[in-house]
Amino acid sequence: MIDFYTWKTPNGEKPMIMLEECGLEYRLHMIDISAGEQKTPDYLAINPNGKIPAIVDHDGDEPVTVFESGAILLHLADKTGRFLPAKGAARGQALSWTFFQSGGTGPMIGQWFHFSTGAPDKLPYAIERFRNEAFRLLGVLDQRLSGRDFLAGDYSIADIMNVGWIRAGLPKLKEAGAGELPALTAWLERVDARPAVARALEKLERAKQDKAAQ
Amino acid sequence: MIDFYTWKTPNGEKPMIMLEECGLEYRLHMIDISAGEQKTPDYLAINPNGKIPAIVDHDGDEPVTVFESGAILLHLADKTGRFLPAKGAARGQALSWTFFQSGGTGPMIGQWFHFSTGAPDKLPYAIERFRNEAFRLLGVLDQRLSGRDFLAGDYSIADIMNVGWIRAGLPKLKEAGAGELPALTAWLERVDARPAVARALEKLERAKQDKAAQ
Ligand SMILES: N[C@@H](CCC(=O)N[C@@H](CS)C(=O)NCC(=O)O)C(=O)O
Ligand SMILES: N[C@@H](CCC(=O)N[C@@H](CS)C(=O)NCC(=O)O)C(=O)O
Repeated sequence: MIDFYTWKTPNGEKPMIMLEECGLEYRLHMIDISAGEQKTPDYLAINPNGKIPAIVDHDGDEPVTVFESGAILLHLADKTGRFLPAKGAARGQALSWTFFQSGGTGPMIGQWFHFSTGAPDKLPYAIERFRNEAFRLLGVLDQRLSGRDFLAGDYSIADIMNVGWIRAGLPKLKEAGAGELPALTAWLERVDARPAVARALEKLERAKQDKAAQ
Repeated sequence: MIDFYTWKTPNGEKPMIMLEECGLEYRLHMIDISAGEQKTPDYLAINPNGKIPAIVDHDGDEPVTVFESGAILLHLADKTGRFLPAKGAARGQALSWTFFQSGGTGPMIGQWFHFSTGAPDKLPYAIERFRNEAFRLLGVLDQRLSGRDFLAGDYSIADIMNVGWIRAGLPKLKEAGAGELPALTAWLERVDARPAVARALEKLERAKQDKAAQ
């Protein structure tokens, strides 16, 4: 059994998609980050960085705690042998595009959202900096996906890693002038058409509402 | 044989340290990012994101291209069976702290440097935002390292991943008020005392100077 701690956000969705894709059993724990539940001592014992998502995997000889969405996807791929090629060029690409998200689109689209909508003062220099970097990164993805169905051969953790922030950011970045990005747009539709992806997003939304209703 | 493309920066050092730690053979290609060499068509064919570091590993049945420092460290750990536990709780922690760097200290200390020293206008809100996040992340590392020699059990890719930005950022962040951070400071000294780390940094510095002299 896997204990899965998350919330309905672009990073929180990723392990949920992987768990559903793999058909693994898990207990879902909703950590309301708007109420600061990611900073309680109990949760900090799981992820000392005080962020969702995290898991504790009880299936092996000892409990395995993993935080950071990318690390969780790798752990689950190791565990199941699924959605990550075991070796060779395809594995190299899947790992590369997985980390590309962690250090690239994740923080950069996140900062663009913050400076363009969240921040108290609208600072043109900062908005433009992160918008331009987000545009550049979307362009890199769009070019990578031209003539390819998925980022690294077959559907893999690289796609699961990247899809959350693209789903959240693409419409708003297009409004801001990111361009057509046809290959990236088609890829998003392709990933979102997967039953496990739809199931993960629905379950997460329902769990969030249940928690709010408590 | 491994072709290794890099420059002397906090991210560019990481694979060099791992290559030296593992005693692997490699050909060093210095990509001068101040001269835009990371954006040439030849290099973009290796890393479409136009950043160092990257490798092409020719040792297997087919060439394996890997970009993103974290992905390269994982590839080299897979290849050698070194500096990453094969399974269990220790592997979970090593993966978690590796991704912590990619999405955390890397981009956040990077943005703090940019807004506090690189940016044309000094924007107090942005400087404070990234300084506070950098301070918080250093605090998380310091607490993690209290009573521990390394981030995840034995010395691992998690330490190699984290050390570059800490070496670059710690003195300046202390000047800016980050506090004593005794455990983090001791860890930095511990990692930097390793012969392979010193060798990697020296070789990289020498290669940079050789390139400048050409
Ligand atoms: N690099 C991390 C990012 C995790 C992250 O940013 N989580 C956000 C929600 S999407 C969070 O917990 N925010 C609450 C906080 O920072 O206090 C990952 O990929 O897991
Ligand atoms: N997340 C990437 C970051 C790589 C990165 O930022 N590289 C910088 C040098 S430290 C670079 O190539 N900058 C040149 C550019 O962006 O054009 C990694 O860990 O490899």
